[in-house]
Amino acid sequence: MVCSKRLVENFQSIAKIGAKGAGITRLAFSDEDWQARTLIIKLMEEAGLGVIADAFGNIFGRREGLNPESSVVMLGSHMDSVPQGGNFDGVTGVLSAIEVLRCIHEEKIENSHPIEVAVFMAEESSRFGVATLGSKAFWGKLSPAQLKSYQDKQGISLAEALQERGLFPEKIGDGQQPSIKCFLELHIEQGKVLETKQVKLGVVEAIAAPSRFRVVMNGEADHSGATPMNMRLDALAAAAEVVLLVEKLAGDEASYGTVGTTGIIKAEPGVMNVIPGKVELGVDIRGICLESKGRVIEAFRSGLNAIAMRRKVGFELVTLTDEQPVALSKNLAELLSGLCQKLNYSSIVMPSGAGHDAMHFASHVPTGMLFIPCRQGISHNPAEYADIKDIAAGTEVLYEAVLKLAQADFRIAE
Amino acid sequence: MVCSKRLVENFQSIAKIGAKGAGITRLAFSDEDWQARTLIIKLMEEAGLGVIADAFGNIFGRREGLNPESSVVMLGSHMDSVPQGGNFDGVTGVLSAIEVLRCIHEEKIENSHPIEVAVFMAEESSRFGVATLGSKAFWGKLSPAQLKSYQDKQGISLAEALQERGLFPEKIGDGQQPSIKCFLELHIEQGKVLETKQVKLGVVEAIAAPSRFRVVMNGEADHSGATPMNMRLDALAAAAEVVLLVEKLAGDEASYGTVGTTGIIKAEPGVMNVIPGKVELGVDIRGICLESKGRVIEAFRSGLNAIAMRRKVGFELVTLTDEQPVALSKNLAELLSGLCQKLNYSSIVMPSGAGHDAMHFASHVPTGMLFIPCRQGISHNPAEYADIKDIAAGTEVLYEAVLKLAQADFRIAE
Repeated sequence: MVCSKRLVENFQSIAKIGAKGAGITRLAFSDEDWQARTLIIKLMEEAGLGVIADAFGNIFGRREGLNPESSVVMLGSHMDSVPQGGNFDGVTGVLSAIEVLRCIHEEKIENSHPIEVAVFMAEESSRFGVATLGSKAFWGKLSPAQLKSYQDKQGISLAEALQERGLFPEKIGDGQQPSIKCFLELHIEQGKVLETKQVKLGVVEAIAAPSRFRVVMNGEADHSGATPMNMRLDALAAAAEVVLLVEKLAGDEASYGTVGTTGIIKAEPGVMNVIPGKVELGVDIRGICLESKGRVIEAFRSGLNAIAMRRKVGFELVTLTDEQPVALSKNLAELLSGLCQKLNYSSIVMPSGAGHDAMHFASHVPTGMLFIPCRQGISHNPAEYADIKDIAAGTEVLYEAVLKLAQADFRIAE
Repeated sequence: MVCSKRLVENFQSIAKIGAKGAGITRLAFSDEDWQARTLIIKLMEEAGLGVIADAFGNIFGRREGLNPESSVVMLGSHMDSVPQGGNFDGVTGVLSAIEVLRCIHEEKIENSHPIEVAVFMAEESSRFGVATLGSKAFWGKLSPAQLKSYQDKQGISLAEALQERGLFPEKIGDGQQPSIKCFLELHIEQGKVLETKQVKLGVVEAIAAPSRFRVVMNGEADHSGATPMNMRLDALAAAAEVVLLVEKLAGDEASYGTVGTTGIIKAEPGVMNVIPGKVELGVDIRGICLESKGRVIEAFRSGLNAIAMRRKVGFELVTLTDEQPVALSKNLAELLSGLCQKLNYSSIVMPSGAGHDAMHFASHVPTGMLFIPCRQGISHNPAEYADIKDIAAGTEVLYEAVLKLAQADFRIAE
């Protein structure tokens, strides 16, 4: 049986690591990250797991199956945090997975498939500017060139950070993947859909990877008092139209779960008595439906052009990233939804707006994700909080799912 | 006769003072400002003027009249600059006035009224955050409390800056005003109306003082990927509507010369993956028609409220300044326009969007201003530039005006 008390104790132990200042700071490969990793290895061993690490430092706590040759049921997440983040992002997925394995260990359940708890390093982009590095490395998606070019603010490359921890950047991608039956990740929602709809659990159908753009509107910086309205080339007024365009286009596609956000705006010279001559915007467009997201991006490009033409201002549009949405396994989603119903937890099927380690598994093996609510949708912030009742409910669903998936005769169609 | 060569030489001499780095830097009461003041005193003396200073350091070069008891025809401007400004803002008004008096001196013209060239200190707000300090002091509008509370970035108060220059902050406002017949100021336009309309000179009818507002839109900072469009309280989208509201309202009143500008925008947290929760705006609304400006401000307040209500975001509106437009003398404007015509210089009657020393004279004595074009409307910038032909043309008109105004029998009606 899932033990809430033990879960709470483990969250409390982890919360002490990196608690200097507000919130939790456990940057990838930092001392705090390494202390947390050491604690996790200890918890894995207490759950009867055999622990191994790969060349990137990702750790895997393995419970052998009756048939050790058969494919692995894998579940997990990450332990690193953003600066001044919370103690639930990633941690919830790792501790719930360890709790599931601890229960299975104590209950001496005979699983046919081996089961592994995975902890991926460097999921947050805070240190090296790129997210989900550990799961990328696991799937051989990190080149030696990237290991050198990704650097932190001190100029330490990812390869150097790995060497400092006694790891093996030169061996990344060499090892053979274990045969994996499926991958499951439990995570806090990092949004407020579950809380708003008063639903206990979210079954993730797809992960919406972002397309990101840098937009610069170029007008003319004139005196705000001495320039009549009809002689202006106001870069900020043009940019304001772009902000509202992004909002409208995404709103029109809201039924597909597509979202659009202008998160960055910088006006130059940015003083009271000068019409802004140059405004820079950062635009983020995401969706789980490739067609819907594509429609928004296309209309964004043409709308931007129309605004610039009508206002006679110049513009630059640079695509920073353009990732594809990742569909998760329909069958695993059905399994998870069914288990929620069986355990009497309300649930909805929903997209994930944020990226997760799970997205690197989805093109290789059947992959599922379970969301639990987090208060007010707040994440990456000292105020990040998830209720232990919700964490325990998610862990119970995960436990039931793993029991089924680890049976030799439970097949995942598709 | 106005001598272009001499004007050019004087501009060149002044340009050497404060020319460290890009453009011209002569902050009020700085060493550079004081060097420029010393040079101006020398030029005044060469024009046969008797120079006196008041308690604030404003200088007055006086040519006596046949009737020394009669009221003074005064003309002038300022010599200080913004950091990395140009060599024409203010300087043009001072050098043209000195040139006028030099011509009168050389031509041994017998003027009935005394004529004075005034140079007001600290016209730019760059050092103490408040503009036109010298002309304010001249009219007794600076209190001892203000002299102490106005401080520069080093914490030096205006009173201390005056003392450091051997001036007399305690005596400001004590001296009696001379009896003044009228005041004239020639200045670069600091806008591009003359250049766009291909007109040589502008006769200013009124000075549009600004009303300035700080607006803060308060939404909610949520994850840009994980928050559906209908669950957002996007402070930037709300602010974008405010920017366009300001532009539209001022545009509707453009026929009255009213202008509205959002020059400042700051979004928090200002990162790609978070919906801005807080956005600050700086809004500047100006006009020479009090009623028109009032209509814009009233519609701005109610429109802001409507945007916030509809979007369910909070807002703060703080009035930073709320000044009244200043009408200049219609009769002096007619005199200046007539002289432009007589001398075959095209001219238009126009408002001044920027504030000037002249505005403190307008409620006391008949006051007139003459604008000359500046290239692309650029001012407060190293690229500030005015053509010597335009400067000379303006100086000729000023010369003719002063000759008339200094006659005993030339009365200014109204």
